[in-house]
Amino acid sequence: MKSIDINCDMGESFGRYTLGMDEEVIRLISSANVGCGFHGGDPHVMRKTVALAKACDVGVGAHPGLPDLLGFGRRYMDVTPQELEDFFVYQIGALKAFCKAAGIRLQHVKAHGVLSGMAERDEKIAEAICRAISMIDKEIIWLTYSGTKTRPIAESMGLRVVEECYADRAYNADLSLVARKQPGAVIKDVAVIQKRILQLVKEGTITTIDGQVLDMPCQSIAVHGDSQGALDMVRQIRSALEENNVKITPLRSFVG
Amino acid sequence: MKSIDINCDMGESFGRYTLGMDEEVIRLISSANVGCGFHGGDPHVMRKTVALAKACDVGVGAHPGLPDLLGFGRRYMDVTPQELEDFFVYQIGALKAFCKAAGIRLQHVKAHGVLSGMAERDEKIAEAICRAISMIDKEIIWLTYSGTKTRPIAESMGLRVVEECYADRAYNADLSLVARKQPGAVIKDVAVIQKRILQLVKEGTITTIDGQVLDMPCQSIAVHGDSQGALDMVRQIRSALEENNVKITPLRSFVG
Amino acid sequence: MKSIDINCDMGESFGRYTLGMDEEVIRLISSANVGCGFHGGDPHVMRKTVALAKACDVGVGAHPGLPDLLGFGRRYMDVTPQELEDFFVYQIGALKAFCKAAGIRLQHVKAHGVLSGMAERDEKIAEAICRAISMIDKEIIWLTYSGTKTRPIAESMGLRVVEECYADRAYNADLSLVARKQPGAVIKDVAVIQKRILQLVKEGTITTIDGQVLDMPCQSIAVHGDSQGALDMVRQIRSALEENNVKITPLRSFVG
Amino acid sequence: MKSIDINCDMGESFGRYTLGMDEEVIRLISSANVGCGFHGGDPHVMRKTVALAKACDVGVGAHPGLPDLLGFGRRYMDVTPQELEDFFVYQIGALKAFCKAAGIRLQHVKAHGVLSGMAERDEKIAEAICRAISMIDKEIIWLTYSGTKTRPIAESMGLRVVEECYADRAYNADLSLVARKQPGAVIKDVAVIQKRILQLVKEGTITTIDGQVLDMPCQSIAVHGDSQGALDMVRQIRSALEENNVKITPLRSFVG
Repeated sequence: MKSIDINCDMGESFGRYTLGMDEEVIRLISSANVGCGFHGGDPHVMRKTVALAKACDVGVGAHPGLPDLLGFGRRYMDVTPQELEDFFVYQIGALKAFCKAAGIRLQHVKAHGVLSGMAERDEKIAEAICRAISMIDKEIIWLTYSGTKTRPIAESMGLRVVEECYADRAYNADLSLVARKQPGAVIKDVAVIQKRILQLVKEGTITTIDGQVLDMPCQSIAVHGDSQGALDMVRQIRSALEENNVKITPLRSFVG
Repeated sequence: MKSIDINCDMGESFGRYTLGMDEEVIRLISSANVGCGFHGGDPHVMRKTVALAKACDVGVGAHPGLPDLLGFGRRYMDVTPQELEDFFVYQIGALKAFCKAAGIRLQHVKAHGVLSGMAERDEKIAEAICRAISMIDKEIIWLTYSGTKTRPIAESMGLRVVEECYADRAYNADLSLVARKQPGAVIKDVAVIQKRILQLVKEGTITTIDGQVLDMPCQSIAVHGDSQGALDMVRQIRSALEENNVKITPLRSFVG
Repeated sequence: MKSIDINCDMGESFGRYTLGMDEEVIRLISSANVGCGFHGGDPHVMRKTVALAKACDVGVGAHPGLPDLLGFGRRYMDVTPQELEDFFVYQIGALKAFCKAAGIRLQHVKAHGVLSGMAERDEKIAEAICRAISMIDKEIIWLTYSGTKTRPIAESMGLRVVEECYADRAYNADLSLVARKQPGAVIKDVAVIQKRILQLVKEGTITTIDGQVLDMPCQSIAVHGDSQGALDMVRQIRSALEENNVKITPLRSFVG
Repeated sequence: MKSIDINCDMGESFGRYTLGMDEEVIRLISSANVGCGFHGGDPHVMRKTVALAKACDVGVGAHPGLPDLLGFGRRYMDVTPQELEDFFVYQIGALKAFCKAAGIRLQHVKAHGVLSGMAERDEKIAEAICRAISMIDKEIIWLTYSGTKTRPIAESMGLRVVEECYADRAYNADLSLVARKQPGAVIKDVAVIQKRILQLVKEGTITTIDGQVLDMPCQSIAVHGDSQGALDMVRQIRSALEENNVKITPLRSFVG
């Protein structure tokens, strides 16, 4: 029997501001990337999100971002590797404490917003992130893009890596995401998405935007939970997986 | 041989802003209360302060504050016990991660600014703070005022408590601090301070502002490091202690 | 022909976070209280909200709050009158600049969250707020509770005052709002609300929670725009007013 | 008689954190660039700095920065021109209100940190900044680098421009600053600085790092006030100017 993880960002509400339909989407996924207060999330939201994940038996990951609440961690900032390492130690530590208080383990770390791309393009940034994780706990898994250049860096520090792909995004021939501004970058046809995910799980391949069928290592599907449409999409992805006897299971099941 | 801890707030610089003469005062003390980013401190300062404490063999404590950088955590905010618990879990967790990264233990927690007084006056606040600490790690020591009302609360949650007194402050007959606006509240005469501290260490008593000699449980002296004058004061306190064969040792030595 | 202003808080979104149905509610009101970035709102939201108000011919007011985005300016903070004056000068000045850039006047100021109540209870706070307004521009109107104790303070500084009442709230015999936790504090029956507002506009009276009919000076009705239900309520209030030939007009029309 | 302006950054303290020796340096300069709360400064500091400038008859300028207190506005952030325009309208408006409250005019705007360079390199950024200024008040002067590419942009919007050079920095043949990491970038010899400034004032020329003597339009000398050494330097620059009958006068005297 095949299996796959479904991961989703959540815990990004802040104070009076609500973002995401966390209570609904968490029932549909197996791993949660939880905001840590820099780009989104606050201490109260973190506590509640960890409790929710625990109640739903969903793996909890830290989702550290740049210190830019106004920009939601989505705009590039010229931070040094040391600064980024410190931002990660701080945010991962904070979320880990909420996990400890709730009696669960912190399963993984995923970089938020522009940081995933920065880690792919700049190995000093990747090293900083992996070093932060490994200094806190080498059992924490690094969740990042399929085909990531950060794998050897993470593994050299004793970390395990899980690779993800985006359910609704087209891929280039080098397995990078097709930029959002290009036509066809975002896939909206549910049947197409279901088919692509089954191909990914069963064959381990993706069909790129130019029609090539390429191997794509992937143990986790990244989905969204910020609208009713996004929720419906996740439900239909789950249905397709369940109908095809694919088990949905937290990403920790995919590493040794 | 008698012994005592000397504790000092540090790690309260933020970005471009420097506060306190941390590099000097840390050589004179045995326990450091490190800002955690809410009232002061930032992730970079936290890393450097932990490294400095490790190098100087000084015990590291978290010093969580209210989320009010502009007010330096010194003005009252109407937070609920649950909110405060969350603020403490977040900040203690963040500092604990820097300790873990540096390979040392987090020794203690001390509440910053208005929070110490709030904990004495409102047992729900005290419970929130102690619960936050105990959920993260019951080995972490709660450092607070001599004669604290929070002791039974902390102990009921399995925490150990160390009590402190302020070297340069006068005390009322109920062992509370004389309010700063009253005459005689702050003691400036070094010889008087030296004498009071020796009395405290040797006899376990304090002479109150109205002349009574009262028992005062105290295993730690709180000092300041934010000016040259403050540094000189700490040096002279140390001299008096050393000349009288009092050992200066981190506060963890005073609990079982 | 009678007339009345309808005012509503808006411009409280922040970065990625949306709050309130500003684009809908602004078509139903005559004065907007715009967040200024401390408790909610950001520079981009401020620009857009001013543009929207201009397009809808709605009077623009500044809605300064405490510097507590996490608490949305709703929790008490122990600020000095001078600190509060500075917070108001800063925030009013910022919004005034967006008005200037858009070619419109800043019509009024209303205090956000806990600040309105603080101004009623502490005349030093009221003086600080009124002083901030009057130093920037004495033409700016002070919008606050019906029966406000701040009127003589504002007028002594050359400011004009408009008083408001809340459409959906019950009032005590001293014209203060019935506390939310008390039964009957919030009125949900639209027919009752419509009747109360017509009584207010036509008779200038309110029926208190204990059944007294009292004079209530009021030139503006405060409504909400943060839910579909709130929008429907405003629509029905408007209908009742229009059916009774009451003109809805910005609050500046009520002062000399 | 020749004349020149001396400008200095100030008002960059924040809450408990003090930066710069504002009270001393303001007695030595003729124009002050005042932090507006994003990279440094807070509403209380702004009020006090404006009062100080008024008392010393020093021209007040706004010194808006990126929203990055932790990075002191010194690190690049990928903001859009519209975002930057909004940041400038907000910050300039806030400081202008403190000027209004103090009964003085806002003289100029200077961009803080990385923003000056961003404006030189990207004309959309320059347009955004100049548009923000011109929408608030076309009387406000744009203070920026000597030889600035932003001059035609500013002038096309009706703004007047004053150009400055740095007293202690070497210049390249294209009149750009020699990068700090290059040898000779910062000039420390007071006699050399005095000579360069007199050459600048009297001849209107600068000697570049490669020995060329080039025309350099400049009506203002930028100095620092953040250390005792910096203060001494300003005193010696003033002495040299006064001994040579050069008048020190706010930058508004240099535009029509």
